[in-house]
Amino acid sequence: VRQTLFSEQSEFQHVDVIETVPFGRMLLNDGLVMVTERDEHIYHEMMVHVPLLTHPNPRKVLVIGGGDGGTVREVLKHSSVEKVHLVEIDEAVVRACRLHIPQTAACLDDERVVVNIEDGVSFTAKSKEKFDVVLVDSTDPIGPATPLFGEDFYSSVYTCLNDEGIVVAQGESAFYEGEMQSKILTILASQFAATYIYNYTNMTYPGSLWSFVVGTKGLCPLRDFDERRFSRLSLNTRYYNPSIHRASFALPEFMRDKFDSLLTGIQA
Amino acid sequence: VRQTLFSEQSEFQHVDVIETVPFGRMLLNDGLVMVTERDEHIYHEMMVHVPLLTHPNPRKVLVIGGGDGGTVREVLKHSSVEKVHLVEIDEAVVRACRLHIPQTAACLDDERVVVNIEDGVSFTAKSKEKFDVVLVDSTDPIGPATPLFGEDFYSSVYTCLNDEGIVVAQGESAFYEGEMQSKILTILASQFAATYIYNYTNMTYPGSLWSFVVGTKGLCPLRDFDERRFSRLSLNTRYYNPSIHRASFALPEFMRDKFDSLLTGIQA
Repeated sequence: VRQTLFSEQSEFQHVDVIETVPFGRMLLNDGLVMVTERDEHIYHEMMVHVPLLTHPNPRKVLVIGGGDGGTVREVLKHSSVEKVHLVEIDEAVVRACRLHIPQTAACLDDERVVVNIEDGVSFTAKSKEKFDVVLVDSTDPIGPATPLFGEDFYSSVYTCLNDEGIVVAQGESAFYEGEMQSKILTILASQFAATYIYNYTNMTYPGSLWSFVVGTKGLCPLRDFDERRFSRLSLNTRYYNPSIHRASFALPEFMRDKFDSLLTGIQA
Repeated sequence: VRQTLFSEQSEFQHVDVIETVPFGRMLLNDGLVMVTERDEHIYHEMMVHVPLLTHPNPRKVLVIGGGDGGTVREVLKHSSVEKVHLVEIDEAVVRACRLHIPQTAACLDDERVVVNIEDGVSFTAKSKEKFDVVLVDSTDPIGPATPLFGEDFYSSVYTCLNDEGIVVAQGESAFYEGEMQSKILTILASQFAATYIYNYTNMTYPGSLWSFVVGTKGLCPLRDFDERRFSRLSLNTRYYNPSIHRASFALPEFMRDKFDSLLTGIQA
């Protein structure tokens, strides 16, 4: 650790930004690594481009959590997107990242972005707007993010989504949080027409193999994936590409055994 | 750490076996984690089944390094295999694992296995036997394994391989050892008809995204992959399966940028 740039006890958690040699600047909530400059692109590219290149015409996107801005930055690379609502419960996270991690937060000044400092559960419950894609960019199911792993929240998300809507949520690690993954897939399967799970490699979270869970009203991230749009948009990704898009849905045998009955879409 | 079961300074390195709560028993060479009971199957399944299900009829297999026995255990699941030579430079590794990690080492008593306590470079240089598959199950390119990342060694490996031969080698992590990966792929590309690289997730090595490099005299791990043999053999894998086999050759964009010119086979 080179220096501490931000350290504040907010209403919800302890928020720190530190500067490190191997990973650049890092955001920590309650001491847990949320974002590092060196590898944040992997998580953010994988969360965003899979659903946005599956939806035929994503115009309105809702991001729950993700106050660092990395998810919004990737969403804005899609020229079809007209409006992004970011709903972050903790204004200290947004402020810390605006001040010290412009790599992710600079995009929050884009005119298509509305930053709402609000609880994601209440925002979705009362929202009258409809969205094409909802991205649940949450921390672990402890502390302020706990309700984002619940049934009521996903019921509201379903209602917020257009008829072709997709929700993608941060889905923890199969090595350490298999039970949590089962729980969230069970909730998604009870409400959505099709559920999926896809994997990526996380350098800085424990367990290495991390997942995103998906619920759709009918779209399939493999069948409906628009590869030509990937080429057309020049997304300037460093991890995501069409081969990785498809490969990420290949599940190791232990995950297939565990989740097969909960995955109502076709994985490969 | 619960207890230390084995601790010895051999001619080549310090060898320890310790018992831990989260990962079970672990083998460490010079303090670096080599094998853990909890996740060794991922590495060993991925190293072995990709080439053995690509080769049409693997009968003779050479394993360089891998004194823990995990690679040999997976090789022996292939009923076509008649003989496996294990060439481990450090007898202390074999002895420690035979005593304390039977999960990987018990297979070394199989009658098809010959254990050679010898330097892999000299074994391959003077070998008169020919092999269908050579697996270079080495530690990092520091200490005793350094020559296993060199040109002379791969020249001998080429000569040891039958006309349809394949070599697969532990290929480090793209996040931390991109230069080393370039170097070994350059060596392979100078000698073999086709080179490939494939990835897997490593829970206990730094960097998470680890690779195997491949050289073949013509076989292609995607085109020549015999999926029906996978079903017939009942390999009882917990990570590897045909979807993962194919998906492992999908490279993140930064790896494709870096290695494209060195990968003379078709990756996807």
